[in-house]
Amino acid sequence: LKASGIITLTTDFGERDPYVGMMKGVILSINPHARIVDITHGISAGSILEGSTIIKEAYRYFPLGSAHVGVIDPGVGGERRPIAVASKGHLFVGPDNGLFWPVIAEDPLAHVIHLTEKRYWMDTISSTFHGRDIFAPVAGHLSEGIDLFLMGQKIDDPVSLTYPVVGREEDLLVGEVIRVDHFGNLITNITAEDLAEFLSSGGLSVAIGGLVLEGIHTTYSEVSEGKPLALIGSSSLLEIAVNRGSARADLGDACEIGAKVTVSRHQKETFA
Amino acid sequence: LKASGIITLTTDFGERDPYVGMMKGVILSINPHARIVDITHGISAGSILEGSTIIKEAYRYFPLGSAHVGVIDPGVGGERRPIAVASKGHLFVGPDNGLFWPVIAEDPLAHVIHLTEKRYWMDTISSTFHGRDIFAPVAGHLSEGIDLFLMGQKIDDPVSLTYPVVGREEDLLVGEVIRVDHFGNLITNITAEDLAEFLSSGGLSVAIGGLVLEGIHTTYSEVSEGKPLALIGSSSLLEIAVNRGSARADLGDACEIGAKVTVSRHQKETFA
Amino acid sequence: LKASGIITLTTDFGERDPYVGMMKGVILSINPHARIVDITHGISAGSILEGSTIIKEAYRYFPLGSAHVGVIDPGVGGERRPIAVASKGHLFVGPDNGLFWPVIAEDPLAHVIHLTEKRYWMDTISSTFHGRDIFAPVAGHLSEGIDLFLMGQKIDDPVSLTYPVVGREEDLLVGEVIRVDHFGNLITNITAEDLAEFLSSGGLSVAIGGLVLEGIHTTYSEVSEGKPLALIGSSSLLEIAVNRGSARADLGDACEIGAKVTVSRHQKETFA
Repeated sequence: LKASGIITLTTDFGERDPYVGMMKGVILSINPHARIVDITHGISAGSILEGSTIIKEAYRYFPLGSAHVGVIDPGVGGERRPIAVASKGHLFVGPDNGLFWPVIAEDPLAHVIHLTEKRYWMDTISSTFHGRDIFAPVAGHLSEGIDLFLMGQKIDDPVSLTYPVVGREEDLLVGEVIRVDHFGNLITNITAEDLAEFLSSGGLSVAIGGLVLEGIHTTYSEVSEGKPLALIGSSSLLEIAVNRGSARADLGDACEIGAKVTVSRHQKETFA
Repeated sequence: LKASGIITLTTDFGERDPYVGMMKGVILSINPHARIVDITHGISAGSILEGSTIIKEAYRYFPLGSAHVGVIDPGVGGERRPIAVASKGHLFVGPDNGLFWPVIAEDPLAHVIHLTEKRYWMDTISSTFHGRDIFAPVAGHLSEGIDLFLMGQKIDDPVSLTYPVVGREEDLLVGEVIRVDHFGNLITNITAEDLAEFLSSGGLSVAIGGLVLEGIHTTYSEVSEGKPLALIGSSSLLEIAVNRGSARADLGDACEIGAKVTVSRHQKETFA
Repeated sequence: LKASGIITLTTDFGERDPYVGMMKGVILSINPHARIVDITHGISAGSILEGSTIIKEAYRYFPLGSAHVGVIDPGVGGERRPIAVASKGHLFVGPDNGLFWPVIAEDPLAHVIHLTEKRYWMDTISSTFHGRDIFAPVAGHLSEGIDLFLMGQKIDDPVSLTYPVVGREEDLLVGEVIRVDHFGNLITNITAEDLAEFLSSGGLSVAIGGLVLEGIHTTYSEVSEGKPLALIGSSSLLEIAVNRGSARADLGDACEIGAKVTVSRHQKETFA
């Protein structure tokens, strides 16, 4: 695996503090030619579930040989291990708290390394900011092509995460909202694949918070302005949106993360 | 036109979602040496007017041969065409919805290309995220020096925008607030040029929301701390500001986008 | 001093306006290979104290030969001088208003240059945006290796800042909150060094807003979830935090910047 020289960052650090800048300084002190890309620093504080979803959605758009640093790390300084993961030509660096579980779970060939070799870290390690002191320097070295396997020992018991699972009954899929984006689109855990398997000649309807939406649309403008619709979004997940509006604003409390979403198959109506 | 290798991004995507990061990944997968600069991702959702103003203000500070991607795209997936524009040594990539109209309108030599050549796009095109699937890869190819004219057909009917026009009466200029910035400065559509033409020996006064400000100042500190003033801002537009304060906070509802601003020429007073 | 080609930016411009993008365009027009890193654009508007703290915390993580631009510049266009500072192998560019005082004050060998050579500036200088018109182009030239001493005259009277000083009494350190971060951690001006000198066999307790915390911890997880603690944070400053929570949220008004924090040395108890 040839290093691309590209490093991505996903954290819950926000944009106001100097923490992300410090990590970039550390990386550039090791590899002045690293190209660093922010995925987001707006993960909800401590939300491993949210961070893991974002990393899994985003990493595949980057060149092979890129290193993806994730720092959503509420257990920093405690027992949790620092790890790096190699999967499908990409590298991942961060805490062993489930953040990379979606990547590991879908790749039986993934390698997970417990980072133990301190020569790839900063000289002094704080107890509260491993992003700067361990993960950034490890990523800096990886971006220069240093072999991940020199940095620690292979482990086979990384921490896993429990994801909300899509329930299936004969004529019903039961999922939930897993992310609400900047536009107020409600992104669910029901995949395009789930729908393809479930689809029947009778068409589908989607229910959320008392609202029933007929059909799965392809794009926002298939309904008139201000109207809600269900469609397959850009990450191949079922999404509830409002054309040129915000589903979050219109649906109110029903749109929180965790809100139940059901897809029903229309029965062929039979008449007596 | 030699490509600079620099790509700028202006969107209404906000900072929390992975969408901007995905676009950068796509660009770097095509041109790993592209240098990508964020102008802003904080355009109000769907505001083509605001986005077009920002792009026009910012692009000229970049090297010739740069590609400027704009994704304020409420009609994505519908009938609107994807376009690229060549003007004054710069390239622009985004939806044909008026976003680049200010650039096109002021350059009779601008070329507009309807992007149709799918070999410069992602393999799979979603219906909801052309920023990632069409505009980012097109910009990636442009940043490597691929000729824009290979990417589609020249058109001469790009979508236009209607901008608020400055009204003129003999002793009055009538404009409006078009942008309120982070500092609470109220930026109007009245240009330094408008004022230069209008200026007379008697001096000027500026009125907004019941407030009358004497004179056009050069910098904030010409009035005492906490006092409002009118001045020509850094984009050569008439601006209402408060020295070391916020005009938005002090003027309240009068400072909304669209608020009327008038400039009066003082009459030489005549005494009987 | 060899230029690293790296430029950092710290401003109070926020993320919505095109101002930061314009500065980057100016830099790249001078040095297309500059690598530009945002420290933050979220400094409170006009807060020189806050900006100076962030710059001092962050710059040391970057390679020697980097140029650090700071634009918290409420006096722009007035009497204040534009300056650049050379200290400990780093360069700093911005207004002479105290922003770089912490860097200058701790380095007797620091050089301060009053920027006067207009050939390193933009051709036209606005009265309100020296970040774009003076500081960005100066940094662009510095990042290419142009000698700082060609850009103006050495001065020895840069503007200083008054920082809150830690008070000491026999069994008490008296400091204050100087920054509240994105996680709600309250960062004080009491340093690890202050504490090391003060430490005694009897242990320490920390008081803020009616709350008394026993001991100085090493990491968040040493107390149970939701509990407050005092610890040395990643910048070697005493910090009040809540494990997996927000001290700002829990302590309310007591946690504002400027709130008093005292450290007490436990008396060996004596019994009559």
